[in-house]
Amino acid sequence: MPGPLIDAEVGDTVVVHFRNKLQAPATMHPHGIFYANEMDGAYKGKWTDPGGFVQRNRTFTYVWEAREGTEGTWLYHDHGPMDPLPTFKGLFGPLVIRERGEARPDNEFFLAFHTFDPPITGLRGTYFCVNGKAYAGNTPTLEAKVGQRVAFHVYGVDNFFHTFHLHGHRWTEPDGRIVDNKTFGPAESFRFELVEDNPGRWFYHCHVFQHLHQGMNGWYLVS
Amino acid sequence: MPGPLIDAEVGDTVVVHFRNKLQAPATMHPHGIFYANEMDGAYKGKWTDPGGFVQRNRTFTYVWEAREGTEGTWLYHDHGPMDPLPTFKGLFGPLVIRERGEARPDNEFFLAFHTFDPPITGLRGTYFCVNGKAYAGNTPTLEAKVGQRVAFHVYGVDNFFHTFHLHGHRWTEPDGRIVDNKTFGPAESFRFELVEDNPGRWFYHCHVFQHLHQGMNGWYLVS
Amino acid sequence: MPGPLIDAEVGDTVVVHFRNKLQAPATMHPHGIFYANEMDGAYKGKWTDPGGFVQRNRTFTYVWEAREGTEGTWLYHDHGPMDPLPTFKGLFGPLVIRERGEARPDNEFFLAFHTFDPPITGLRGTYFCVNGKAYAGNTPTLEAKVGQRVAFHVYGVDNFFHTFHLHGHRWTEPDGRIVDNKTFGPAESFRFELVEDNPGRWFYHCHVFQHLHQGMNGWYLVS
Repeated sequence: MPGPLIDAEVGDTVVVHFRNKLQAPATMHPHGIFYANEMDGAYKGKWTDPGGFVQRNRTFTYVWEAREGTEGTWLYHDHGPMDPLPTFKGLFGPLVIRERGEARPDNEFFLAFHTFDPPITGLRGTYFCVNGKAYAGNTPTLEAKVGQRVAFHVYGVDNFFHTFHLHGHRWTEPDGRIVDNKTFGPAESFRFELVEDNPGRWFYHCHVFQHLHQGMNGWYLVS
Repeated sequence: MPGPLIDAEVGDTVVVHFRNKLQAPATMHPHGIFYANEMDGAYKGKWTDPGGFVQRNRTFTYVWEAREGTEGTWLYHDHGPMDPLPTFKGLFGPLVIRERGEARPDNEFFLAFHTFDPPITGLRGTYFCVNGKAYAGNTPTLEAKVGQRVAFHVYGVDNFFHTFHLHGHRWTEPDGRIVDNKTFGPAESFRFELVEDNPGRWFYHCHVFQHLHQGMNGWYLVS
Repeated sequence: MPGPLIDAEVGDTVVVHFRNKLQAPATMHPHGIFYANEMDGAYKGKWTDPGGFVQRNRTFTYVWEAREGTEGTWLYHDHGPMDPLPTFKGLFGPLVIRERGEARPDNEFFLAFHTFDPPITGLRGTYFCVNGKAYAGNTPTLEAKVGQRVAFHVYGVDNFFHTFHLHGHRWTEPDGRIVDNKTFGPAESFRFELVEDNPGRWFYHCHVFQHLHQGMNGWYLVS
């Protein structure tokens, strides 16, 4: 975990052949991409469609459409009858919808900020993770070279609000603000790009000091 | 509760005839709209104006001005000497200031995300509410038809940060980002519009998983 | 505390002569401004540069560059081996990078929203502070005159998300939204300006009701 990247361009139809190998029912609910009502992968009690309750060892084929107006970095996650437990255990992953024919960055990273278990207050003892691991060296060590076009794709998927801070760098938001630290909430996602110009061993981390010190940090190595 | 919508256009003067039927002093403090100092409805100790301390069974007339530069979706809430208890008990409501002669959407919804009581840590046991109710079916069931222009007005009014997530839809933020889930804080408010194109039974909910599962969700039915 | 304002213009090189008078190692880590890897003031275990571990009574000279593309309001804070304790004790301060030759506002305020100690859940008993003090009258009392161009520079530097709310005023965000209350996270910072047009005794405060009522509020006096 996280689950595999779903990488689409505008105009694509995304077909997910989902097989549930868990002991419990599970689903896939995507963000951002277009889906008809029966393809939203959400458990709705007596109104539940088959895609909202995929039992153990059963399959379901989700069909989603990367229509114009769905461009961005998104995520998918379980939204079945056991929600939120499967998501807290790692049933989530990144989804990106790019412009048609868009030039890929030289290097890109997809980073989920999350916790395991469903902690309420984030007391000491909880590990704050990036892609399932805690503390620099265990979390993804990102690498890039000076001159490369580098994209960061970041999303949250727990009960907490986080910030994404990158040492030694800054980027321009769509509204023109220059930032090096950005707030995001559960199931929010964003993407930014920069042209690498600053070699060294850098930290990336959540700037909630508690989250940082309970593991939500990693290395970004620029050569 | 919430209190009634105050619906103004730029250029309007809003006159609120406030009568306090509670056992305790209370006030009305608006966001966004222009008000002179003695009309801000805030308790200020020895500097309190009459509008900042309206006693039981007394009245006060608030006069506020929807000047140019105050357009938006806002809220009002108690800001009297008992603050924050009356607000946590439901003394709040929506306020919208529209462009002069602006075409109304075909359908619009005003949704307060909040909790009762003044919980600090949001432990299990707290109900997370939309407009005073918890869980889909109790919270507002929103309805729209394909082809309609639909506006959502959302505000927070408790100790927590929330996100607003709408299944099966996305919207464009003022900075051009396409989103389906947006962070907002206490007394923050926002509005977005979409042209309805996706029929079905959809969830709207706070995407803080804990808040979602303690009640902060509802139905949006599109026919 | 907070530490002194570092006030730079684009094109400046900022040289900080840092002497550690504490009993424990400490550093200075800046946001926003350009710095080479060995100047980031961050403790990195076995990869630590001298600037990331300045011992008691020792000095270090940080050299940072206010390059084009670093404009904004930022902060600096300890990021040494004792992190986050020194920051929670007050080792932080504001940093502003202005356009070359930019006209200064008539009046401007730098406000840190923070707590002492490293509280996790913000239980009752914690003081929520602005620039080291709690409650209006202790926190900075800001003053301005009608007609002045006034700039507010606000940053967070604890474990919490806050909002900045100013009574009787509103401002335009870079994306065009008109707001009077804005969410920000730890080590996020922002600046807004307004031309003062509304005399009186006004509150500024965090709109997380709990934070407001545990001290995070102050006076803004307009004559």
